[in-house]
Amino acid sequence: MQRIGILTSGGDSPGMNAAIRAVVRKAIYHGLEVIGIKRGFNGFIEGDMEPMRLGSVADIIHRGGTILHTARSEQFKTPAGRAKAWENVERFGLEGLVVIGGDGSFTGASIFHREYGLPVVGIPGTIDNDISGTDYSIGFDTAVNTAVDAINKIRDTATSHERTFIVEVMGRDTGFIAVAAGLAGGAESILIPEHPFSIEEVCHKLCKGYRRGKLHSIIVVAEGAGSGLEIGKQIKERTGFDTKVTILGHLQRGGTPTAFDRILASQLGARAVELLMQGATSKMVGMSAGKIVETNLDLVLGQKKTVDLDVYRLASILAI
Amino acid sequence: MQRIGILTSGGDSPGMNAAIRAVVRKAIYHGLEVIGIKRGFNGFIEGDMEPMRLGSVADIIHRGGTILHTARSEQFKTPAGRAKAWENVERFGLEGLVVIGGDGSFTGASIFHREYGLPVVGIPGTIDNDISGTDYSIGFDTAVNTAVDAINKIRDTATSHERTFIVEVMGRDTGFIAVAAGLAGGAESILIPEHPFSIEEVCHKLCKGYRRGKLHSIIVVAEGAGSGLEIGKQIKERTGFDTKVTILGHLQRGGTPTAFDRILASQLGARAVELLMQGATSKMVGMSAGKIVETNLDLVLGQKKTVDLDVYRLASILAI
Amino acid sequence: MQRIGILTSGGDSPGMNAAIRAVVRKAIYHGLEVIGIKRGFNGFIEGDMEPMRLGSVADIIHRGGTILHTARSEQFKTPAGRAKAWENVERFGLEGLVVIGGDGSFTGASIFHREYGLPVVGIPGTIDNDISGTDYSIGFDTAVNTAVDAINKIRDTATSHERTFIVEVMGRDTGFIAVAAGLAGGAESILIPEHPFSIEEVCHKLCKGYRRGKLHSIIVVAEGAGSGLEIGKQIKERTGFDTKVTILGHLQRGGTPTAFDRILASQLGARAVELLMQGATSKMVGMSAGKIVETNLDLVLGQKKTVDLDVYRLASILAI
Amino acid sequence: MQRIGILTSGGDSPGMNAAIRAVVRKAIYHGLEVIGIKRGFNGFIEGDMEPMRLGSVADIIHRGGTILHTARSEQFKTPAGRAKAWENVERFGLEGLVVIGGDGSFTGASIFHREYGLPVVGIPGTIDNDISGTDYSIGFDTAVNTAVDAINKIRDTATSHERTFIVEVMGRDTGFIAVAAGLAGGAESILIPEHPFSIEEVCHKLCKGYRRGKLHSIIVVAEGAGSGLEIGKQIKERTGFDTKVTILGHLQRGGTPTAFDRILASQLGARAVELLMQGATSKMVGMSAGKIVETNLDLVLGQKKTVDLDVYRLASILAI
Repeated sequence: MQRIGILTSGGDSPGMNAAIRAVVRKAIYHGLEVIGIKRGFNGFIEGDMEPMRLGSVADIIHRGGTILHTARSEQFKTPAGRAKAWENVERFGLEGLVVIGGDGSFTGASIFHREYGLPVVGIPGTIDNDISGTDYSIGFDTAVNTAVDAINKIRDTATSHERTFIVEVMGRDTGFIAVAAGLAGGAESILIPEHPFSIEEVCHKLCKGYRRGKLHSIIVVAEGAGSGLEIGKQIKERTGFDTKVTILGHLQRGGTPTAFDRILASQLGARAVELLMQGATSKMVGMSAGKIVETNLDLVLGQKKTVDLDVYRLASILAI
Repeated sequence: MQRIGILTSGGDSPGMNAAIRAVVRKAIYHGLEVIGIKRGFNGFIEGDMEPMRLGSVADIIHRGGTILHTARSEQFKTPAGRAKAWENVERFGLEGLVVIGGDGSFTGASIFHREYGLPVVGIPGTIDNDISGTDYSIGFDTAVNTAVDAINKIRDTATSHERTFIVEVMGRDTGFIAVAAGLAGGAESILIPEHPFSIEEVCHKLCKGYRRGKLHSIIVVAEGAGSGLEIGKQIKERTGFDTKVTILGHLQRGGTPTAFDRILASQLGARAVELLMQGATSKMVGMSAGKIVETNLDLVLGQKKTVDLDVYRLASILAI
Repeated sequence: MQRIGILTSGGDSPGMNAAIRAVVRKAIYHGLEVIGIKRGFNGFIEGDMEPMRLGSVADIIHRGGTILHTARSEQFKTPAGRAKAWENVERFGLEGLVVIGGDGSFTGASIFHREYGLPVVGIPGTIDNDISGTDYSIGFDTAVNTAVDAINKIRDTATSHERTFIVEVMGRDTGFIAVAAGLAGGAESILIPEHPFSIEEVCHKLCKGYRRGKLHSIIVVAEGAGSGLEIGKQIKERTGFDTKVTILGHLQRGGTPTAFDRILASQLGARAVELLMQGATSKMVGMSAGKIVETNLDLVLGQKKTVDLDVYRLASILAI
Repeated sequence: MQRIGILTSGGDSPGMNAAIRAVVRKAIYHGLEVIGIKRGFNGFIEGDMEPMRLGSVADIIHRGGTILHTARSEQFKTPAGRAKAWENVERFGLEGLVVIGGDGSFTGASIFHREYGLPVVGIPGTIDNDISGTDYSIGFDTAVNTAVDAINKIRDTATSHERTFIVEVMGRDTGFIAVAAGLAGGAESILIPEHPFSIEEVCHKLCKGYRRGKLHSIIVVAEGAGSGLEIGKQIKERTGFDTKVTILGHLQRGGTPTAFDRILASQLGARAVELLMQGATSKMVGMSAGKIVETNLDLVLGQKKTVDLDVYRLASILAI
């Protein structure tokens, strides 16, 4: 093996740069060449690719975003698009590909591998943490800390008033960010798609809290569980409480990655290179039970990962 | 003068605790006693008041919120409410009152002074910075930094995509936070109530930017200029651009105060005590042209402060 | 079981408050009473203890330090001191004790258990991460992020100059903080007590880097590996490079705990209560391979935990 | 005027990039061309210069350090060095020069102006804030916030122990950072070069505090007032108190600039371009009494700026 490609795809997440750095430096350390592919599969199709050197990844470990840029590619979903990408594989002499992204990106990589045989290794990079085969995806820890930081700030003002605060966090169809941020932030309620809830119940809990002397309540809402603004409106209608809503949105995707995300990204990136060198054909690297592990890409794509409801319940017990 | 009262009123802002600390310690330094009044004018009416000592304000200088809690009081707007407050003035032997808050709080304080003659000194504490007689109110610098931090994070992800991002910030009827955060954050557009704008214009600028190669645009919207969600919807309808919205909401009110806000709060708090000792009857302390100054409360209340449009234009020039 | 005690002991670490909150609320949830013991074993000996309620731990989850205060107790090392503590166990009717701290604290707790039979459960709380039986101790993740944040800032100025920067971090006799912060911060060299090094080697690497065009180098020094100032002096003498030293010191012990530390603290605190309720007599809770586990206190105390040298080598490879 | 040069020189400070961005964009807005000069006067001498466009300064407003790099130049102190720089002025067709830096940089710029007549405008950029003609230099507010953040963290752990903490901050021969950070951080003592102190006095105050029940003390030491380690040793010898030292060092020079520094940098940068266009020959822009002002460079260099001792005394009163 002499030359590998690397791209970031789908929604970006903090720590992707640390993963790129690890792949590039680990590969160069072992004598490989690395071709950086810009804007995800789009750049792969268009041949927007160039060699990366040690210096290409200097001083990026602490930067949010991805220096390779990212995009969602409609064209790569078509055989014609993938055929063009294959031309670039041949043109640049790639013998392996590292794809940093989420489910959608891995699906594309997996199909491409099946069609053309190029060895691919996926690195899970998404703040949503909704990828099987790894306990943590790169960016999740940073996103949770960003959400918790927001809850902290709201808590400051909450203790000065008598109000209900709603914080809408990301997570697509899952409640990973909501549960972790809600537990760590000491939120009174956490609304997630994995656990049914009714507004009546939420209001009942709020009223009980106020009767017991709670001066304020913070409710974390996963975007997959409903709109923060809509839920706020309903609570106000039913309880009359002054309800204030914060929608974090894409700021959860940015920021300097935490130490955890950088270390995870460094380990996964290095392991991805080792796997390609050892002849892996279609794998994802991940962290499971504290260890760096690999899983077949198809297995990753076939499974749905859901929130640990024990942790969800713990958050509820500790917020009494 | 032997004993003064202190309360925080209206919306809270980071740095209020630093101001409380300064008032309490400066007063004790000069041999005065200080009575802390809880929950703004509500606690004043209900007699929810207690003596403060040096230790009462230990380790609070870095805390957001206010240890005295705050509230908006409907009752203090009535003569009956104020009469009850006056009873507490007599019961606790107060000879002066320091009120930390905004316009509404100062209006109440001013009326109370006129009716009962109690000397009052206001300290401007609001993130909105919409108080005349001072260039900066306590909490503004912190709120701006919070908004800028959010813009930074969005910028990380913005450079990885091709999108329009909207950040809705606070400011009530003014654009102070929006202009400062937009300039400091390098936002492409800033929408404020003080400066008319049309969605057509905003979209035109966006399209021009994209044609020139801009990969992303960040638009800061002051809450007084419209709803971020609504403006985002309109931009998407007209341009087709993927538009993502962040609503910061009350998290702008929290957080550890910046050094600037703590120093301002310390200076204003100390000066407020000096003014009461020197026989001031109805003043507000502020910072103007880099100096600590005082203004008659009535003058403060009679004037409207607006954003410096030169700074607004500078932001626009630098974002080309 | 009706009543348990809780104390924090030894050096404090961020997240101890989150652990206290978890113990108190989980215990109350199960109908137990909790007695908070102040200033570690000192308060235990002196009877500086009082009941904790749900409200006692409100709004502390995000606070650094420990609301119970902590201390190192010489007196508890004596039979006389422990006898006095036992009197307080009887006086307050404690049937179990939760000790949050490190090795020294657990040694005291273990001896006390052997002498008097009081069931004890330890929760590992130290930034140094040098406790066996758990992959992470509470506070470690926060301390690493604090050190990484410092490295980030130095990196900013480093890229503008041509210099060698040394950052001395904590860790007692171990290099856990140094390795994690060095890897996550992208440091050029990491000096730890677990891995022998010579100044010649360090200087050789520095010179090689400069010849290859590196504009700056950041060296992380674990306090157990030597004095940052002394190492800086030696490097300057040998290479003539301008060498700047930062000593982080106790600021690594403070700060708002990260989400990771709060979640870990919440899980360990809740599990500690369960263990006492299930009749555990002398255990420590910890996190191993991603799971909450328990270990006999004696086993914890008998083992030495050392840095993963694979991670250390990875840091070195990625910093080429 | 058609073309101007810009360089950053001396120690870097956070916000320099925001100033570069403002100069470049304001100049281009007015139809000027801008040549970026690398590594301060060194690049000026060596002709390490290249044109800057709108895109050259995209996404740098929030970055610490300076994209133009900086250095101290011994060669520019010699007539031969300046003669070479003049050759580059002619080669690149520069009609004006913006120098972002401190006293030393302005001295060089002033001499160069006198010798060769090139119009120069200085922008004060140094964390030390020791430049006359401006109330604030770019980077000072960020450095103070960095120091205050460190004090906050130490305060967390301080409240859990019974100790004396020393934080050594930068400031060269002045106490600007120490006084601002000490006041904002609520430090018990502040040691600065502008105000004589004796160790006896410091220890006396410490002992008095402990007798009155203070659990801890934080002492901020300006580097110009002595070595933090040395002062810590002396305090320990005299009082026996456990004394812990943090040396912030160069991390004060880094970090994302605060909103204040970015706004200041934007305003000063824009004004510098206006001044050159209006025919200024040797000026420095600054902020005085809340306004953007200009001063003759020679006047700036002839004056010494010292700390406001009223603020120093206020810090002392509020820390009782």
